[in-house]
Amino acid sequence: MIDKTEIERIKQVIVEKLSSIHTLKRVQKINQLVDEIAGQEERETESLSSEEQVVTPWVVSGKIDHDKVIEKFGCKRIDESLIDRVERLTSRRAHVFLRRGFFYAHRDLDKILDCYESGKKFYLYTGRGPSSESLHLGHLIPFLFTKYLQEAFKVPVVIQITDDEKKIWKKLEKEETKRLGRENVKDIIACGFDASNTFIFSSYATVGGKFYENVVEIADCITVNKANSTFGFTGEVSTAKMIFPSLQAAPSFSSSFPHKLFPDEKKNIPCLIPCAIDQDPYFRLTRDVAPRLDFIKPALIESKFFPALRASGNNGKMSASDANSAIYINDSAADIKKKINSAVTGGRDNLEDQKKYGANLKEDIPFQYLSFFLEDDAELEHIKKEYGEGRMTTGDVKKRLVQVVTEIVERHRMARAAVTDEMVDAFMTPRPLFE
Amino acid sequence: MIDKTEIERIKQVIVEKLSSIHTLKRVQKINQLVDEIAGQEERETESLSSEEQVVTPWVVSGKIDHDKVIEKFGCKRIDESLIDRVERLTSRRAHVFLRRGFFYAHRDLDKILDCYESGKKFYLYTGRGPSSESLHLGHLIPFLFTKYLQEAFKVPVVIQITDDEKKIWKKLEKEETKRLGRENVKDIIACGFDASNTFIFSSYATVGGKFYENVVEIADCITVNKANSTFGFTGEVSTAKMIFPSLQAAPSFSSSFPHKLFPDEKKNIPCLIPCAIDQDPYFRLTRDVAPRLDFIKPALIESKFFPALRASGNNGKMSASDANSAIYINDSAADIKKKINSAVTGGRDNLEDQKKYGANLKEDIPFQYLSFFLEDDAELEHIKKEYGEGRMTTGDVKKRLVQVVTEIVERHRMARAAVTDEMVDAFMTPRPLFE
Repeated sequence: MIDKTEIERIKQVIVEKLSSIHTLKRVQKINQLVDEIAGQEERETESLSSEEQVVTPWVVSGKIDHDKVIEKFGCKRIDESLIDRVERLTSRRAHVFLRRGFFYAHRDLDKILDCYESGKKFYLYTGRGPSSESLHLGHLIPFLFTKYLQEAFKVPVVIQITDDEKKIWKKLEKEETKRLGRENVKDIIACGFDASNTFIFSSYATVGGKFYENVVEIADCITVNKANSTFGFTGEVSTAKMIFPSLQAAPSFSSSFPHKLFPDEKKNIPCLIPCAIDQDPYFRLTRDVAPRLDFIKPALIESKFFPALRASGNNGKMSASDANSAIYINDSAADIKKKINSAVTGGRDNLEDQKKYGANLKEDIPFQYLSFFLEDDAELEHIKKEYGEGRMTTGDVKKRLVQVVTEIVERHRMARAAVTDEMVDAFMTPRPLFE
Repeated sequence: MIDKTEIERIKQVIVEKLSSIHTLKRVQKINQLVDEIAGQEERETESLSSEEQVVTPWVVSGKIDHDKVIEKFGCKRIDESLIDRVERLTSRRAHVFLRRGFFYAHRDLDKILDCYESGKKFYLYTGRGPSSESLHLGHLIPFLFTKYLQEAFKVPVVIQITDDEKKIWKKLEKEETKRLGRENVKDIIACGFDASNTFIFSSYATVGGKFYENVVEIADCITVNKANSTFGFTGEVSTAKMIFPSLQAAPSFSSSFPHKLFPDEKKNIPCLIPCAIDQDPYFRLTRDVAPRLDFIKPALIESKFFPALRASGNNGKMSASDANSAIYINDSAADIKKKINSAVTGGRDNLEDQKKYGANLKEDIPFQYLSFFLEDDAELEHIKKEYGEGRMTTGDVKKRLVQVVTEIVERHRMARAAVTDEMVDAFMTPRPLFE
């Protein structure tokens, strides 16, 4: 922990040593030298041992302990009674992602349920930064889950395609991020969103008007210090990165949208955001800012990270930049088979040991994938028992997973092939959603 | 000056002292403590003796030495030969603001003249942050000068009303800044801009589309360190302030405007910016960024500060926040008379001394005002001689100034009264300017 008296002493040293420099220059010089040090620290942090847990919206690495993440971020765990309440209110079984604990944390989900129960409207907001041509399975998860929420609660969805983000962070060409964005929109539509109740929008195309007005209001409430401490920014980041959190925050407030979308009399509509937990820092800031602007704090329902095929257990999340660690929506059946066969498992080194000790399910990626994608609870329970106790081999589990994933991907491919440019345009046209 | 080895030693101390702290935390902590110190420094700077020269886009105070400002900023002085060239190319006498050295500095003005001489188009960009209901004489200057340039070179003008800036800096309500902006537009139109060749736009209404795309490109080239060292920002400023320089920069590039304004085939049109020299930091940054984005560096023609009525000589600039230091466009004739009569002068304490020593013209605000607003060179020369040599009294000079200013204000009032809402809308509608 930080020793306060030590810090005080250092401050004194800095002030003393720099007292001969002209005041304005001194400010700049201090900033400069500290940013230099900070930049160095950042580079050191990036090369940390992979055992250390790092969770930011841009870097998820190290051995992730999801309980610790909740604790550190200050969100709440989703317990059985909350899941029961969702099931009761929606009169349907909770989605596997929810009932199997993949979406495991929240902020104010109970308030959203109160709101729904009392007959008031809310809307869902999720998004995607278009950094690759095709989505992978991990990318699909928030969309599949959001689609379930839309169906279950019959509410509007807004989906932000942050093409500007990928320009700023990934240094992709602006036109390329726009193109990738449009390709990704097709994959998103293929997840089955309700066309009459879903607005998909690109940042580049939407920033302006009320949206920009809210961006300014939000950015005005966030100091550079606050952004630095929330995101680990330093003076070396671009000023574009300083504004981006406000751009991601804006869709949380219904007044950011042209009133065509939300009727004038419903300016302040509660918002629920399904997302992976690494996005929490953005929305923590957003929630801090909301009351100062007389806006409702957005609620959150947050997932764990979808594991990579080739990293052990809960290490990191599936990354679009390592093609072999992920199954893409446009992979062929042969690719899928090959990738799943090379996945990291918790199976034992030989058949004898497997029979004797059973598989280590916590480290077994194929089993974890089945728990996400196999709908049938009874079959999953059966595999868990048989595989965990050594009566089923890794080969059997992989084979079943290949079937399940191939089917999902095939279904998605067909749905995507049916998405026309006209459909994309229709989804991306601002229009009344609350009717 | 800064002692480099000293800085190195301080850096070492900081790193050593903080080495026990977790790396990510360390970064944040260092940033925090330095920003604390920097904030303290900034507050100290603000309370500096008024003798010290401070020139930023937000604060102009102290005894201003315009030569030093040029030197510090690195712009060029406008010399006689450049003024001659302007007169030759435009076949008309240079504006008094130019021939009397009020617009005294530039960047690349010669290149703009080259461009004009070779028959290529350029455009003018200026702006206004709407912080008051009515403009004062100082506010009119860039517009009167820009109008002269438009007439002389027959080029389009774009005028940005930075209503967002006043929200961010002055904490005015958004709707109030929009309202003030529209009121100010009427005063700007009353200056006589060519309706077919002038586009006036509010930031709030225009940010989006190509404009926002360019803002992101620009902001992405400006690090937080760079913004800090250019503007004296610290970690205590809002992230909105971090993005604002990119918003002021964007209109310097013709591609920021919907192509309705500038035809597609003329995407990269040179820009000349008439402004007061305190705006130089913005455009220095803009010029740094331009080549990285394949844009043409905007050229600048920069004025001295318009002196306040009640501050001595060249101390500070006329401020909208001290009503008595400025003559407003909506002041009554009686107000004008009263204000001018209480202006600081370089006249002597009694008539005897005045006759003996003559007035100190450098400290004489009424004479300086006459040099801005009295068109007649011969009369100005006459007053200079008579007043400077004691044959004319301060009262005579003030009386003449009251006549001149009252006439200008009266003329402006009539012109403004003729500005209809329809005219405001027409000026603010994007439409082809290069036709």
